[in-house]
Amino acid sequence: MAQQERAVRTRRAVLEAAAAVFAERGYAAATIAEILNRAGVTKGALYFHFASKAALARGVLQEQMRTEYHVPRELKLQEWVDAGMTLAKRLPREPVLLAGVRLSADLQGHDVLGSAWPAWARLTSCVLTEAKERGEVLPHVVPEETAQVFLEAWIGVQFVSQAVAGWADLDERMSALYGHLLPAIAAPAVLVRLDTAPDRGARVIAEVHRRSAALAGVPG
Amino acid sequence: MAQQERAVRTRRAVLEAAAAVFAERGYAAATIAEILNRAGVTKGALYFHFASKAALARGVLQEQMRTEYHVPRELKLQEWVDAGMTLAKRLPREPVLLAGVRLSADLQGHDVLGSAWPAWARLTSCVLTEAKERGEVLPHVVPEETAQVFLEAWIGVQFVSQAVAGWADLDERMSALYGHLLPAIAAPAVLVRLDTAPDRGARVIAEVHRRSAALAGVPG
Repeated sequence: MAQQERAVRTRRAVLEAAAAVFAERGYAAATIAEILNRAGVTKGALYFHFASKAALARGVLQEQMRTEYHVPRELKLQEWVDAGMTLAKRLPREPVLLAGVRLSADLQGHDVLGSAWPAWARLTSCVLTEAKERGEVLPHVVPEETAQVFLEAWIGVQFVSQAVAGWADLDERMSALYGHLLPAIAAPAVLVRLDTAPDRGARVIAEVHRRSAALAGVPG
Repeated sequence: MAQQERAVRTRRAVLEAAAAVFAERGYAAATIAEILNRAGVTKGALYFHFASKAALARGVLQEQMRTEYHVPRELKLQEWVDAGMTLAKRLPREPVLLAGVRLSADLQGHDVLGSAWPAWARLTSCVLTEAKERGEVLPHVVPEETAQVFLEAWIGVQFVSQAVAGWADLDERMSALYGHLLPAIAAPAVLVRLDTAPDRGARVIAEVHRRSAALAGVPG
């Protein structure tokens, strides 16, 4: 294995171990010792990539925005729905996303660690702006304002879903949220064409896996 | 002062002191000693009303639903908006409400303490059901489902407002939330008549104070 490839793998192992520990314990209670233990790397290897616990948390937060499940659609608003519905499906299973939610909600840590909130709001804002240019969005919609409302609502949805169902009903709650926000956002002719069903996220993820398998020459 | 009146006052003083301590420190870190100290009552007086810290927390949670700022309106949906907008205005200043938000968000405490969430969801659900019977609400709306979405979104709105502005912009964020949810809920002819401006809560509260003053014979 080339040295660069090994470095990439080590960095990834450290990030995933850190994410798991942050997701379980929160920032304040997480220790470098436990992260080292989970990652199975040396202290030197960890500090080569991340200078401190705060740097590790910032690294985990930057990982939130990976877009491997993005599929271009005819309607930009469908891409926005897909982003939220795949996130709802992935969140309970992916420590990096769980850690992102927990670190972003750490009010004491906001100044030191930053938060994934601004990046999520920008993503929504960009998609809505593009959708508006295409005429998919009602004329009075202000993308930045809608992005804020959606971010806040999403934070509440995942929080309540965690509290009452350990995230098991997150896809249903997200589906209901889109159902309640889209009439204020989408042009009527677009609204009726959007798929916001609770299993939308699972179907998009399966579609992406089939595509990757086809590209790799493996039978889907 | 009659004995009963004194008991009511003591109970109120204890609840308010407990609310302030729970709001500041959360349930786990709050101590009976600090609550006693703030309330200025004896240990015996406190335990006469509340058998334990958990009982105190439940008492604070039950205080959430006081409806002193309810004003009947021609449109039930306006009453629903007013409930949210007055809450947004009152929350930053009223320890009992702040404690309710914090205790309800305490996932460790949910089983022991309960939460104000079900009561809030029921309130929304009842208002929407009545609004629907009057034809104010779109026919496909399911009040219980909309109540859940609203509860989740409200939790997220207040959480983000606390994080980024110490609740100073809560009324603006609530106004934006209603603006984004009502088109999915209200019949078009009702929608255009609803007042969801950011200062709606402040105006309703001022109206209630004027009415109370008038009833008490004091010039408004």
